[in-house]
Amino acid sequence: MSASAERKYIEAEGTSLPGFPVTFELEGYASGKRRNDVKVGMVAPERLLLWELASDEGKFHGGDETAPKPLALFTAGVVTCFMTQMRTFARQCGVKVTGLNTRARFEWVAKRHGQEPYTAHPEKFTIDVEFETDATLDAQKRVIEAASKGCFAEQVMSVPVVHRLRHNGEWVVCENG
Amino acid sequence: MSASAERKYIEAEGTSLPGFPVTFELEGYASGKRRNDVKVGMVAPERLLLWELASDEGKFHGGDETAPKPLALFTAGVVTCFMTQMRTFARQCGVKVTGLNTRARFEWVAKRHGQEPYTAHPEKFTIDVEFETDATLDAQKRVIEAASKGCFAEQVMSVPVVHRLRHNGEWVVCENG
Repeated sequence: MSASAERKYIEAEGTSLPGFPVTFELEGYASGKRRNDVKVGMVAPERLLLWELASDEGKFHGGDETAPKPLALFTAGVVTCFMTQMRTFARQCGVKVTGLNTRARFEWVAKRHGQEPYTAHPEKFTIDVEFETDATLDAQKRVIEAASKGCFAEQVMSVPVVHRLRHNGEWVVCENG
Repeated sequence: MSASAERKYIEAEGTSLPGFPVTFELEGYASGKRRNDVKVGMVAPERLLLWELASDEGKFHGGDETAPKPLALFTAGVVTCFMTQMRTFARQCGVKVTGLNTRARFEWVAKRHGQEPYTAHPEKFTIDVEFETDATLDAQKRVIEAASKGCFAEQVMSVPVVHRLRHNGEWVVCENG
């Protein structure tokens, strides 16, 4: 990492300067019938630990189910990125959070035309959020909106993620503004 | 899972029927300063094992680095989904693959305006592929194209993923058609 990249990042965290890069690198290899092993780590703005992760498929897709499916990693990444950003931005939104629970559901459809390989189509992505907080509903909604716009995973999505907030025993759908 | 959902799936796998659902459900909770724990599993077309995954942040983001960052899970999900689909569709494309290696790089930028929380912006996603195969370059390109269109993770992306194929010592950029 160059000195200038580091400087920009530190300024961006503390003040109002324009931005900082967030970059990940991965190396993967096919290690079993359907298993893949990857090493993944952040390289900018700072080089962090490399992690070894793996994916596999269930038996009916030719795998041995020795590891989560790729979409388990993918969807867990989306949900945890959003959860992290809710906590990152809560204080800035005037919300004190003492607990946070989520439930999420991600739906795709695979479509086939004749003998061609099937194609994948995202359908509906929903994340339900329960804060443990005394903050008002409006303040909680501001956290959801900030977290959504600051969530690196969500901001890559071509389909909108629907967020619902638990409040007074009801589910409130949040607009992403 | 209902009997009719199962029927549709089995037909879609073997023949030319229109499609099948692919659905994941997750439950997560904040379990540390920046750590999140999630349980994730596929619920359609078939209920598979639940996996426990976790995310954490580095120290400079207030975490303890006890687990991969959310974007490590997310990007590993994209890469392993694509790797799995390359092997799923290779035979259908007339390609025998005895080995598969990938390198990938995913770049975002975080932008700030004044004192507002930063917003996340995807920049450039690249996956480099090396097949161990005797197949022609054109046949390998067909595998890349089929895997891209059949990759549930890639098909959610609002930015195109660039695929490069190693061939005769050079990197060949593949069109996604």
